[in-house]
Amino acid sequence: MSSPEIERLIQMLSKLPGLGPRSARRAVLALIRRRETLLDPLAKALAEAAETVRVCSTCGNVDSRDPCTICSDASRDASLLCVVEDVADLWALERTHAYKGRYHVLGGTLSALDGVTPEDLKIPAVVARAAEEGVREVVRATSLTVDGQTAAHYITDRLQAADVAVSELAHGVPVGGELDYLDDGTLQAALKQRRAV
Amino acid sequence: MSSPEIERLIQMLSKLPGLGPRSARRAVLALIRRRETLLDPLAKALAEAAETVRVCSTCGNVDSRDPCTICSDASRDASLLCVVEDVADLWALERTHAYKGRYHVLGGTLSALDGVTPEDLKIPAVVARAAEEGVREVVRATSLTVDGQTAAHYITDRLQAADVAVSELAHGVPVGGELDYLDDGTLQAALKQRRAV
Repeated sequence: MSSPEIERLIQMLSKLPGLGPRSARRAVLALIRRRETLLDPLAKALAEAAETVRVCSTCGNVDSRDPCTICSDASRDASLLCVVEDVADLWALERTHAYKGRYHVLGGTLSALDGVTPEDLKIPAVVARAAEEGVREVVRATSLTVDGQTAAHYITDRLQAADVAVSELAHGVPVGGELDYLDDGTLQAALKQRRAV
Repeated sequence: MSSPEIERLIQMLSKLPGLGPRSARRAVLALIRRRETLLDPLAKALAEAAETVRVCSTCGNVDSRDPCTICSDASRDASLLCVVEDVADLWALERTHAYKGRYHVLGGTLSALDGVTPEDLKIPAVVARAAEEGVREVVRATSLTVDGQTAAHYITDRLQAADVAVSELAHGVPVGGELDYLDDGTLQAALKQRRAV
């Protein structure tokens, strides 16, 4: 239908999460229309990222340096370690500016069905890191799904055996959320863990 | 929060239609995770497209050659010209494999409010092309919006004055569509233009 270069670009873009063939076509047209402001800079940014971005060998974060900016930041509390499933979760926590410790990215969720074992997820590495780096407290920040909680319990068992304190993110009503729209489980958790004011 | 290379990539991707900051972040993570199968090929495809893709000076299509593959295809009927608003519309018509003439891409819609004049849309060029290339019939395939129809009427006036036949796409019930969900205007058009079977 159009040139092979355009076809290839559409095909590659449609593999991105959130884009299908139709939206990839729209994106390609937008790219071609805005060559100077969009196509060229995006091509450059991608080439640069392909060249420089690597996975941090310590925590699993992605960055242009290894160890990553967070791991090599001396002002961060090395005795506090937050375990997340995914780099996206790490980014979400960083956006809050409320956490000053380090991270450990599992890189997925435990799943017996898909054959994902604790070793695949670098869970033993969390325990080893906690011992090596003198971690005082590990914050579990895995998803509240069955798989996420399985990983969380597994990590807790191992760490408590190694005498490391384990905490988890608070459960409750989201800030700005309406009670009426909340699921029963969250509301139950919010009631159980209510605080005196 | 992460490296400047990643930040820049997220920022560029979030400018694509259909992607916001959140989905751009997800896309970037998918790219980094699948470096060999996604990031590198996409970077290459973009660089190639940036290098080769140009707008056809005859019809306004995008292709790696000028005149484009369609304009330089001798097997296509040069006496049939289809006027579309956008390259995306051209692609949609090409996917049907039902049209064997050539195209003319207006590159937008007439809009008095936004100051888009017939000249901005290369409407005089349609008329000139029809005369030069001995076009027998022009198929109007502009959108059925107010702006699209304004352009369509304008083109029709000019072309009929130059003694070129003008046709338009049939209006009616979409194939696979349920009558109950159709708007009144479409149903009305389908009734008015009913065919004997």
